[in-house]
Amino acid sequence: MILILSSNIDSKSDTFNRLLDHLSSLDNIQLRVHRVQGTEQTLTEVYLLGNTSAIAAEDLKTLPGVERVVRISEEYRVLGRHNDDSRRAHFDYQGLRFGQDTLHVFAGLCAVDNAEHVELMMRTLRDNGQVCTRMGAYKPRTSPYSFQGHRQKCLPYVFDLAGKYGIRVVAMEITHESQIDEINEALNRTGHPTGVMLQIGTRNTQNFELLKIVGRQQEFPVLLKRGFGITLSESLHAAEYLASEGNQKVVFGLRGVKTSMGDPHRNFVDVADVPVVKRLTRMPVCIDPSHAVGSRSAGPEGILDVMHATAQGVIVGANMVLVDFHPEPYRALVDGPQALRLEELPWFLEDVEIAREAYKKRAALAGVTRQNVLSSVRR
Amino acid sequence: MILILSSNIDSKSDTFNRLLDHLSSLDNIQLRVHRVQGTEQTLTEVYLLGNTSAIAAEDLKTLPGVERVVRISEEYRVLGRHNDDSRRAHFDYQGLRFGQDTLHVFAGLCAVDNAEHVELMMRTLRDNGQVCTRMGAYKPRTSPYSFQGHRQKCLPYVFDLAGKYGIRVVAMEITHESQIDEINEALNRTGHPTGVMLQIGTRNTQNFELLKIVGRQQEFPVLLKRGFGITLSESLHAAEYLASEGNQKVVFGLRGVKTSMGDPHRNFVDVADVPVVKRLTRMPVCIDPSHAVGSRSAGPEGILDVMHATAQGVIVGANMVLVDFHPEPYRALVDGPQALRLEELPWFLEDVEIAREAYKKRAALAGVTRQNVLSSVRR
Amino acid sequence: MILILSSNIDSKSDTFNRLLDHLSSLDNIQLRVHRVQGTEQTLTEVYLLGNTSAIAAEDLKTLPGVERVVRISEEYRVLGRHNDDSRRAHFDYQGLRFGQDTLHVFAGLCAVDNAEHVELMMRTLRDNGQVCTRMGAYKPRTSPYSFQGHRQKCLPYVFDLAGKYGIRVVAMEITHESQIDEINEALNRTGHPTGVMLQIGTRNTQNFELLKIVGRQQEFPVLLKRGFGITLSESLHAAEYLASEGNQKVVFGLRGVKTSMGDPHRNFVDVADVPVVKRLTRMPVCIDPSHAVGSRSAGPEGILDVMHATAQGVIVGANMVLVDFHPEPYRALVDGPQALRLEELPWFLEDVEIAREAYKKRAALAGVTRQNVLSSVRR
Amino acid sequence: MILILSSNIDSKSDTFNRLLDHLSSLDNIQLRVHRVQGTEQTLTEVYLLGNTSAIAAEDLKTLPGVERVVRISEEYRVLGRHNDDSRRAHFDYQGLRFGQDTLHVFAGLCAVDNAEHVELMMRTLRDNGQVCTRMGAYKPRTSPYSFQGHRQKCLPYVFDLAGKYGIRVVAMEITHESQIDEINEALNRTGHPTGVMLQIGTRNTQNFELLKIVGRQQEFPVLLKRGFGITLSESLHAAEYLASEGNQKVVFGLRGVKTSMGDPHRNFVDVADVPVVKRLTRMPVCIDPSHAVGSRSAGPEGILDVMHATAQGVIVGANMVLVDFHPEPYRALVDGPQALRLEELPWFLEDVEIAREAYKKRAALAGVTRQNVLSSVRR
Repeated sequence: MILILSSNIDSKSDTFNRLLDHLSSLDNIQLRVHRVQGTEQTLTEVYLLGNTSAIAAEDLKTLPGVERVVRISEEYRVLGRHNDDSRRAHFDYQGLRFGQDTLHVFAGLCAVDNAEHVELMMRTLRDNGQVCTRMGAYKPRTSPYSFQGHRQKCLPYVFDLAGKYGIRVVAMEITHESQIDEINEALNRTGHPTGVMLQIGTRNTQNFELLKIVGRQQEFPVLLKRGFGITLSESLHAAEYLASEGNQKVVFGLRGVKTSMGDPHRNFVDVADVPVVKRLTRMPVCIDPSHAVGSRSAGPEGILDVMHATAQGVIVGANMVLVDFHPEPYRALVDGPQALRLEELPWFLEDVEIAREAYKKRAALAGVTRQNVLSSVRR
Repeated sequence: MILILSSNIDSKSDTFNRLLDHLSSLDNIQLRVHRVQGTEQTLTEVYLLGNTSAIAAEDLKTLPGVERVVRISEEYRVLGRHNDDSRRAHFDYQGLRFGQDTLHVFAGLCAVDNAEHVELMMRTLRDNGQVCTRMGAYKPRTSPYSFQGHRQKCLPYVFDLAGKYGIRVVAMEITHESQIDEINEALNRTGHPTGVMLQIGTRNTQNFELLKIVGRQQEFPVLLKRGFGITLSESLHAAEYLASEGNQKVVFGLRGVKTSMGDPHRNFVDVADVPVVKRLTRMPVCIDPSHAVGSRSAGPEGILDVMHATAQGVIVGANMVLVDFHPEPYRALVDGPQALRLEELPWFLEDVEIAREAYKKRAALAGVTRQNVLSSVRR
Repeated sequence: MILILSSNIDSKSDTFNRLLDHLSSLDNIQLRVHRVQGTEQTLTEVYLLGNTSAIAAEDLKTLPGVERVVRISEEYRVLGRHNDDSRRAHFDYQGLRFGQDTLHVFAGLCAVDNAEHVELMMRTLRDNGQVCTRMGAYKPRTSPYSFQGHRQKCLPYVFDLAGKYGIRVVAMEITHESQIDEINEALNRTGHPTGVMLQIGTRNTQNFELLKIVGRQQEFPVLLKRGFGITLSESLHAAEYLASEGNQKVVFGLRGVKTSMGDPHRNFVDVADVPVVKRLTRMPVCIDPSHAVGSRSAGPEGILDVMHATAQGVIVGANMVLVDFHPEPYRALVDGPQALRLEELPWFLEDVEIAREAYKKRAALAGVTRQNVLSSVRR
Repeated sequence: MILILSSNIDSKSDTFNRLLDHLSSLDNIQLRVHRVQGTEQTLTEVYLLGNTSAIAAEDLKTLPGVERVVRISEEYRVLGRHNDDSRRAHFDYQGLRFGQDTLHVFAGLCAVDNAEHVELMMRTLRDNGQVCTRMGAYKPRTSPYSFQGHRQKCLPYVFDLAGKYGIRVVAMEITHESQIDEINEALNRTGHPTGVMLQIGTRNTQNFELLKIVGRQQEFPVLLKRGFGITLSESLHAAEYLASEGNQKVVFGLRGVKTSMGDPHRNFVDVADVPVVKRLTRMPVCIDPSHAVGSRSAGPEGILDVMHATAQGVIVGANMVLVDFHPEPYRALVDGPQALRLEELPWFLEDVEIAREAYKKRAALAGVTRQNVLSSVRR
């Protein structure tokens, strides 16, 4: 059960303290207080955990300071959608809104190889009006003998160049909590020229200790990738580890799942789950067509499968696209074969725009038509 | 190796016979002659099977009666795309063209339950400008104790009503070759008011004996569904069983695959394979969003997942959509929970149209841009 | 609900007819009569299908001619185990008993290539005391351009040689019902020197029309392989298609399932399901280690993985082993790489014997101990 | 390429230093030195990484201090088996040998719930002659709202009670490196009454940062579980992360994989991979029948599926069995339904013994027979 308090309620106010006292007296109930700092107001939510079935929502609604009461199911308590749940489905970071209604493209390097390539990438992004990117510094690799990323060494020039070309958010995978410190240090050293979205990769989706620690910091938003060998439900539960520790700025990423049924694609493309995640939770949904498809193969129209998968995600409402580019795909240190060329960025963005327009038309059509249909249907 | 002969070459002509004689004399080579009857011309192809590596394509090109020579790889000999393979990727049936450039919606009943529902469906289709439908008479069911379809008993009224409402093609699953005779008989009895596209379901994708027999008749085109538990490549090989026996009027159907990773959808939605099949073969590609999704769940915009999956297929170039409708979904005998309501058909069609327009824009953009990009890229 | 009638009840007797009359008068109930011909007696079972919840089992027990009443669950009506279900779990064929307590090895050729190899195989079997074999005449192949088996041409010499060397049962895959006629004809022509167990392969597990037709004949027992891409439950339902049409001489075959998680084995070895199938149904369970493993790889002790998988099936109570041998594995037309050599047969059989002895010891131990444990356990 | 040095070579000796100097001078080659401390001698291995194809093994063999040279393939460099690779396949810990020839049962509590249950378990183990156990203190759970284990709080009484009842090794899952410190601290506080085998669970198989840190300590051996949604090869590569950092005391654990094809078992039982892992690597192989099977279901003989899966692993040479027991399975906090009862331990151990004896007979038979067969086979 969630109590949404009056906005901007002061945690030192009498109202707040009396409310907490009262709630603390309930039997077999634990309290957890979440404060979400928005651009204009602070939202305070109190979670009642335990056996809440005996508590009447109506009684709680009348308590001073309480604006709304949402009875939640057991699953996805913080991030889930529940009946009559109108909690917001977005967050703001670096002046950008990330929500179930927005769309951001994060084109960039799967693995940072050198400063020259980073600058080429950043400049191309700027020239194409982009303000977000992906940059891989810490690379989890199947074999210990493979290149593991330039790690903290590359952070200063990555952040500097991001700032130089007006990139406001860099999505960056981390594989250990110590890397948050390294990122913070590099941001401090370079004067915070950009922001970072921490990315938890598919091999760490159920690395619960990492999730808890990342969830405890609220500085950086988090992009959690689906686990490629677990169910969607299990991956959504993993997102709750972040949120239950306090960080609700979570984007959920679809990146394909592992099964031989997806061949010749590298993974089974799972873009059909975009509406599923948006229905079950309030998280913005990211797609990662590069890792799902895993090659530069193209259909007979000459459109790359990576672009097709992107369009499929966007036309059903995807909110973020993580996509690999590289100045020289065949010389990239990691996952080169799936990277698009810098020259292809304008085409890619225009293709995304067509799909996004189609999505908007579909949503508008649904808004109008669904009412008509529902009213005419006998149940 | 395929020899495409001069169009309209007469199989009784001297040119033809001398050519065959010559080819028959080649060592370790078997011949197979395919004749494809189009609306305006007859296309004759001669397949040279066996060890063709020793044969010079240039020599064969100069033979009288030979127009073109295509050297094929081992895979998907008849239906595959091969280097410099400009064989056509479409066929005509009942005045309609089915190709990699066209789009047809086959909305209809997963299982015929009674004549009243069939008429309601047909009338709704006609009222919405549709000329194709799906109608299930023979239902393969997991349990022998489940309803197995009304089978040949329902055929006469299905065909009559199709004719009455101007439906030109009925897609109908068959599970045994004897059903072709029953269909033929019913068509004869009712005066051929419509056409039939034979559908081979996912449980029979590797029922090779059925494929061979269906492939030997050229009256009806065939929709072959992907096997839900085998690889895409294995399913494409199965299509070759139809084609190698003579029937090249084959549409390939994507209907989702079985794996628990697709939950909560009934199957893992595989629309990302549309461009893959179009790249590997010359078959038009059908999607079956109803069986892939398996429910009437909707995203937060109110758009059903079935419609989302459809849009995802269409925006990447799907050529046919098989979709379940029912006047009373919750009373349907088979797969009711996934059926759309008749009242939703106009919305569905309009939604498809938005995605189709987006696909056309994307293809046009690719045509223009790709040239520019390619010319500017250093390889 | 099943009524097991007095053994040897005459279907023309008054008792039988009065019983049937009575049962026919029950509302919303369909009858199905099964007669199972054993070596010493004929067992007659009457299945009451439909809504049997309103019928009191006690009333039916008192009817003349009724010996026992078993209330069945919806699943696996004929072949399943139900509460208090002591129907027999075996059948006899060619003087051999096939049941949940027996073990038969069917070593042989995956695909018959020539009479010489068949004779070498048969002689080796005879020399090692074997009376069963597997012989593939009809081969379902992924590609239509692959060798499809010597089909009916090889039947006469296969049956002749079986007879010559004392082989009593040949397991043989069929892919179309017409092949039953061909087998019957060849048996007639050669004077019935041996028996045949019809095998339905994994690609036809859900070829329901074939199952129905095969189920209608009661001459030959049937080995139904699990579908490699469907759930175990779905495959067990498929077995019911055979039984519900009248043939209860069904052996269920485990042959591995398709998933990339099983690599480097060809399929995921599923021998752990032996006790599952024996618990859920009354069918004897066959394992097919050759197709599950798919190679001649060996562990560090020099024991082939095919032998390991066999031992794993046998130590938990497998009742039949289908295993590929070949005089020259690397020249076999189909699946050579997984075949054992004729010289390895004695070793294989001795290895099986070790595992079988271990199974017997385990079963005996369970019989003794389980009682002791159960009596001492507080629930 | 691996150079195995003379045993007990002193790392401060001239021989050693001259050898290292020489090797360091090779072009494009990196050196990594591994020292393995055995009970009687210290083994030193030098890995040459990089492009070793140009180096002649013969030349290196002649260098002072070098005993043997093994040319390794790229895969599983440290833990893999390579041609002519006779490096040892075992390690010693707490006076016990863990190798590809030994067998240890680790029966215990999946999750420690209270000291009383721990003592009941330990006493039962002692009474049945056992010196190893499993005890779960840190539990990775799908949902953050589930019980996460008693963690460091329970360590002191777990270790104390282990010592009291003569348990020498406790297998214990860790999910974060800080837990190693907690374990060390608790061992110090309690006076090291027992040893610990660190267990990395299936959700952390590709938590490479954790693997690196655990690999850097050599105090505790490590049991690495296979990832339930990745390939076997990927999991074996993960083991290399441990070994490449210095810890070669690694046991590899098979615990079933995730796929709906394994139903009704909780996971797909993967005991057929025991010989595969032993062939590809030098690691002892552990099976975890409790998590693979996931229930107390039994076959018709009354033998639990957990016992069947165990027997299947042991008869092909498994070296360690991790199995859940609980005094009151249906009141256990985690995974109770799959736990065996304490009263069933003697039966379980006797059943294991039958399978182990069968394995030994099979291995002996292979030793004798294989030579005979091989000598008689024409290749």
